[in-house]
Amino acid sequence: MGKIYNTVSIIGPGLIGGSIGLGIKSKQLARRIVGVGRRVSSLKAAIEVGAIDEYTTELSEGVADADLIILATPVSTFVKLVDEMAGHLMPETVLTEVGSTKESVIKVIRSRIKPDSGIYFIPTHPMAGSEKRGAGHAKRDLFEGAACIFTPLDDTPEGVLNRLEHLWTSLGADVYFMSSREHDRLVARISHLPHILAAALINHTEVAEEGCYAGGGLLDTTRIAGGDPGLWRAICESNSNRIIEALESFSASLGVAKAFIEAGDFDALEIWLEEARQSRDELVQIKKLFAHNDT
Amino acid sequence: MGKIYNTVSIIGPGLIGGSIGLGIKSKQLARRIVGVGRRVSSLKAAIEVGAIDEYTTELSEGVADADLIILATPVSTFVKLVDEMAGHLMPETVLTEVGSTKESVIKVIRSRIKPDSGIYFIPTHPMAGSEKRGAGHAKRDLFEGAACIFTPLDDTPEGVLNRLEHLWTSLGADVYFMSSREHDRLVARISHLPHILAAALINHTEVAEEGCYAGGGLLDTTRIAGGDPGLWRAICESNSNRIIEALESFSASLGVAKAFIEAGDFDALEIWLEEARQSRDELVQIKKLFAHNDT
Repeated sequence: MGKIYNTVSIIGPGLIGGSIGLGIKSKQLARRIVGVGRRVSSLKAAIEVGAIDEYTTELSEGVADADLIILATPVSTFVKLVDEMAGHLMPETVLTEVGSTKESVIKVIRSRIKPDSGIYFIPTHPMAGSEKRGAGHAKRDLFEGAACIFTPLDDTPEGVLNRLEHLWTSLGADVYFMSSREHDRLVARISHLPHILAAALINHTEVAEEGCYAGGGLLDTTRIAGGDPGLWRAICESNSNRIIEALESFSASLGVAKAFIEAGDFDALEIWLEEARQSRDELVQIKKLFAHNDT
Repeated sequence: MGKIYNTVSIIGPGLIGGSIGLGIKSKQLARRIVGVGRRVSSLKAAIEVGAIDEYTTELSEGVADADLIILATPVSTFVKLVDEMAGHLMPETVLTEVGSTKESVIKVIRSRIKPDSGIYFIPTHPMAGSEKRGAGHAKRDLFEGAACIFTPLDDTPEGVLNRLEHLWTSLGADVYFMSSREHDRLVARISHLPHILAAALINHTEVAEEGCYAGGGLLDTTRIAGGDPGLWRAICESNSNRIIEALESFSASLGVAKAFIEAGDFDALEIWLEEARQSRDELVQIKKLFAHNDT
């Protein structure tokens, strides 16, 4: 596979950024990967696992030669980072980010990177991750069979988009295009809602007293609640209206089951449980299909 | 390890019953294991994986020589099975079951197996399982590090209890004793509630449209929703009041997060998310501790 970029700069080579770096290196998609971060220990960890070739704590230096810059830090840091890197970017550089929300991110970045700046901004969201943090947990196949959603601006040239799409499909992802509005509504339902449910369930559990009795069900159902609180706070902050909508429609869905149990209508409950079983099977089949196509 | 029982009869050697059989055989805890079921194909599957030594579809025959009978079928089948086996049991036989609820099960079995019958009834609940079904998915280490809750009747002789406890600890489980009332309240919170949440979440998801975008979070959070609807219907039916209580207290817990988001109080939300992260870590530590002690 040929090189797609010369120098890729990964801002925040942690779990996601580090996995992108590992994937790019294993598929030889770039000549050189520079990691940029604040903590040298994290950057050294990224070097150690082979996710980046070199590192710097100076953002201006780290982005100077890059033809692709990947923001892989929490969405709350984007404004400051983009302000800092402005004036240090080569013309035609592609700036992308892998944050979990899009509408608010596009708003702030667009106010700083103007269409006439010669910099191409492409918002993306790879739907993969882990509750673990840091490059030490990065995996080069993290994105195999995962969806990567692009919510590009109207004025992005086709060729520029195609190159970044090529990068993501080379990492094993399935690339989808949608509007930032559709994206934010979708992830509120299939990513942010499950996170809040997992957190609410573990906060509802008296772990010190009840934890020893827990089976695999409780462990799996609450796994994602182990994620970084600061990161998830920022996600909730930037997608609050859609999350509230998702919480309300979920509560209605839960209310259906509760009403069946209260009414003693266990025939209806069994049909509801059967629908759930079928939908879960369908989800597994869909994900298997994609994983299979990509390997 | 010495034999604890002569002939163990497993009624319903599926995932749970089959895993018990495999564990007993691998630890040589009984001389002979008889599988009893209605479908010959399922019984043959149990023979094939080595979970039982022989099988019969005749309940009276299957239990005649047993000094331990394990009911591993859905709780809704217990009445009929106990009625059918009455009159065919040896004196001093231990009858145990591994159902997910206890108060209602004890009520119906106690009305049929009287204290003066010479049969010892011991309700137990191993807190392990899978969304998969059948002996084909049975594992001999399914209960390693799992809790097994005993809710014995007051008049069960100490020595009889100790033998069954010995069996479960030999299978790697941690045995706990509590009242059936405590048990049912506990499992409503840590087992039945997560199941209903998982089902509600997948039923809330438009799998055909949204499934392709799903990451590991949605897959894990909904895994248990793949469980047998008939089994879970029976569980909900026999523990409905406690489940309604658990659903109500969970909804209050979820409401806390929603109120923070609606009020824009993201500092409070982050503290709530941090509590969740810590509780999740604590749960993992507790389960690791038990798994470690047992292996």
